Amino acid sequence: MGNGKVKPDDALARIRRGADEILKEDELRARLALGRPLRIKAGFDPTAPDLHIGHTVLLNKMRTFQDLGHTAIFLIGDFTGMIGDPSGKNATRKPLTREEVLANAETYAAQVYKVLDRDRTELRFNSEWFGKMGAAGMIRLAASHTVARMLERDDFAKRYAAQQPIAIHEFLYPLVQGYDSVALQCDVELGGTDQKFNLLMGRGLQEAAGQPPQIVLTMPLLEGIDGVHKMSKSLGNTIGINEPAIDIVTKTMKIDDALMWRWFELLSFEKSLDDIARMKREAASGAVNPRDFKLQLARELAARFQGQAEAERAIAAWHAVVRGEGDTTLLPLTEIPVPAEGLKLPALLTAAGLTASNSEANRKIRERAVRLDTQVTEDAQRVFPPGFEGVLQVGKRNFARVRLRAAD
Amino acid sequence: MGNGKVKPDDALARIRRGADEILKEDELRARLALGRPLRIKAGFDPTAPDLHIGHTVLLNKMRTFQDLGHTAIFLIGDFTGMIGDPSGKNATRKPLTREEVLANAETYAAQVYKVLDRDRTELRFNSEWFGKMGAAGMIRLAASHTVARMLERDDFAKRYAAQQPIAIHEFLYPLVQGYDSVALQCDVELGGTDQKFNLLMGRGLQEAAGQPPQIVLTMPLLEGIDGVHKMSKSLGNTIGINEPAIDIVTKTMKIDDALMWRWFELLSFEKSLDDIARMKREAASGAVNPRDFKLQLARELAARFQGQAEAERAIAAWHAVVRGEGDTTLLPLTEIPVPAEGLKLPALLTAAGLTASNSEANRKIRERAVRLDTQVTEDAQRVFPPGFEGVLQVGKRNFARVRLRAAD
Repeated sequence: MGNGKVKPDDALARIRRGADEILKEDELRARLALGRPLRIKAGFDPTAPDLHIGHTVLLNKMRTFQDLGHTAIFLIGDFTGMIGDPSGKNATRKPLTREEVLANAETYAAQVYKVLDRDRTELRFNSEWFGKMGAAGMIRLAASHTVARMLERDDFAKRYAAQQPIAIHEFLYPLVQGYDSVALQCDVELGGTDQKFNLLMGRGLQEAAGQPPQIVLTMPLLEGIDGVHKMSKSLGNTIGINEPAIDIVTKTMKIDDALMWRWFELLSFEKSLDDIARMKREAASGAVNPRDFKLQLARELAARFQGQAEAERAIAAWHAVVRGEGDTTLLPLTEIPVPAEGLKLPALLTAAGLTASNSEANRKIRERAVRLDTQVTEDAQRVFPPGFEGVLQVGKRNFARVRLRAAD
Repeated sequence: MGNGKVKPDDALARIRRGADEILKEDELRARLALGRPLRIKAGFDPTAPDLHIGHTVLLNKMRTFQDLGHTAIFLIGDFTGMIGDPSGKNATRKPLTREEVLANAETYAAQVYKVLDRDRTELRFNSEWFGKMGAAGMIRLAASHTVARMLERDDFAKRYAAQQPIAIHEFLYPLVQGYDSVALQCDVELGGTDQKFNLLMGRGLQEAAGQPPQIVLTMPLLEGIDGVHKMSKSLGNTIGINEPAIDIVTKTMKIDDALMWRWFELLSFEKSLDDIARMKREAASGAVNPRDFKLQLARELAARFQGQAEAERAIAAWHAVVRGEGDTTLLPLTEIPVPAEGLKLPALLTAAGLTASNSEANRKIRERAVRLDTQVTEDAQRVFPPGFEGVLQVGKRNFARVRLRAAD
């Protein structure tokens, strides 16, 4: 749908959805009224990408702009990626070769076009302009800001106060990011709330270059499935966009209701804010079981990343377990190593991550909350040998399809 | 004379003369003992040079190294010169073109080879390596030091504490200077005491590059002819090395005795430290008039910069005035604009810069301290019309050959 077909205020409402901050909204309204496709940038690390739905909060916003007729610029920061960590302190940030950058870019593309409209996306690399800039250009860029201004950035201020070292090149990276906006003549830059300082760099540099300063739009960081921490691979609370549909569904169905509403706001295209408000009322009044809304969210996410057919299969598998109707072999299989003599049920439940301890497992068994292949089981003494395969379940939504193998 | 012909300790004694600090002297002794020509760097601004004898303190030390068989590297910092002041705050630091840099280099060369041995000098430009470095190289260089380390530099610390802006590129310039030593594989870098921080940058960068760290030798800043302030064109207390011999002699003869000894130490090649100690004793005992030593210094400086013959002419002219014997037309002529009706003697003395005020002039006339063409004059009422030419003198050493012309 072209930009001209949506009124600036309506466009603004769709853009504002879920946003943390827009600097400045008046400028964005005026820019939207220009009637031309705006240039919407978001920058991404060139390290091997393995995106999770937390990353898609930004991609979704880019997609919204695309749906309004604008151009998304998917910028890969390969220039700094090819430098790596020049202070040598961060061994995990090795310099990437050009080949690695291009390979990673392809991996990225395979993932991000699950959200972005390929025809309205510019895939760019900032080595394009920084490769030509020269040492003198970098010095000129460094002249544009002061040390004091840079030390205002939260993390720099904290580290400086704590007498933790800040290498001088770290002051250059926000300027590099800002200059990308000059080179790309961006109208809008998107980023996480933690990126606000860097996003604002672009404004000053664009003004100095005679360009209208970009509008900065920050999106919140998505909480992980634990509902507490920011979604992050290292915390193990992610849903990867390349995960099987059944995992997307299973994990989504485990989130609590409060998080569900937040995910709807930030992740759903199918539900408008009005829809979500109505659904909240229906859930609050008891007219609809919140689980039914969660299933809609799970289906939408699974379909987006794995296609409609896979999504339907996964939903059916989930029903098979929770409702005891359907084919449990659609569930993902987890291999669990066990001693040659096997494990008793409580130990098995704990090994499968369904209970925190054997005593909790025993309690759940006594409470008749444990099921094996959808049937309640109370036999805490039963031994499960290597080779056993079945669906274990604790309570309604906590289940795993396991296969036991002899531990080495 | 080759390096091999002077023992390291004797060489060290000559190098140590007048030096403010050597970091580290042990390293320098060991380096001198290697028996190969060492690479001795000093960096110079590429702005239009107009050297005064204050600058030659460093050049003299380079010459001492050359006399000991080593190589002087006269480094012109054209890379930063061609950037100018990228923050645009310092209008006097306009970017230089390559043509201007080369023209300035020739002007420099014409001056510095009055001190340096051309055959043992490398004239280099740091654009040679920085022109090829690229923006990524500059970022890597910036990674070598921390913000906190840079803020230890005196002037940065003061400005930061006073909340005066420090542009980020100012942190890069000491690194640029340090990297020059890596590119040139320097053994020693010379600079003024105010340069110590920057000189030390080279050591760390060389070690990181696997080179033995350069020895840093700082020389004091020479006091100007006022004996109080550092010699500086803006203070009008300089002796330019392109000045006529008579000006070099006249100005040198005006310095006080304490300054004379300092100038001997820092500027004389003819007098050894032993000579100077002996001369001091002779002056203190009254055996020799300090003025006679001052004449030797004046002759040496005039001869260095304008040749032996010019130096002898200038010394003779000085005698003509002070001793009243010889040709006063050898003195430099100063044109003084006067009203059509002329000036009375006190006003003329003040206009010629020989007295601070008319009342001082009147006092000097009454004290019989004023001479006209070597003869005492007491006629304070005499009017000097445009066209008058003569030698005015107040006291022994304060004189000027003037020609009056009608003011416009």
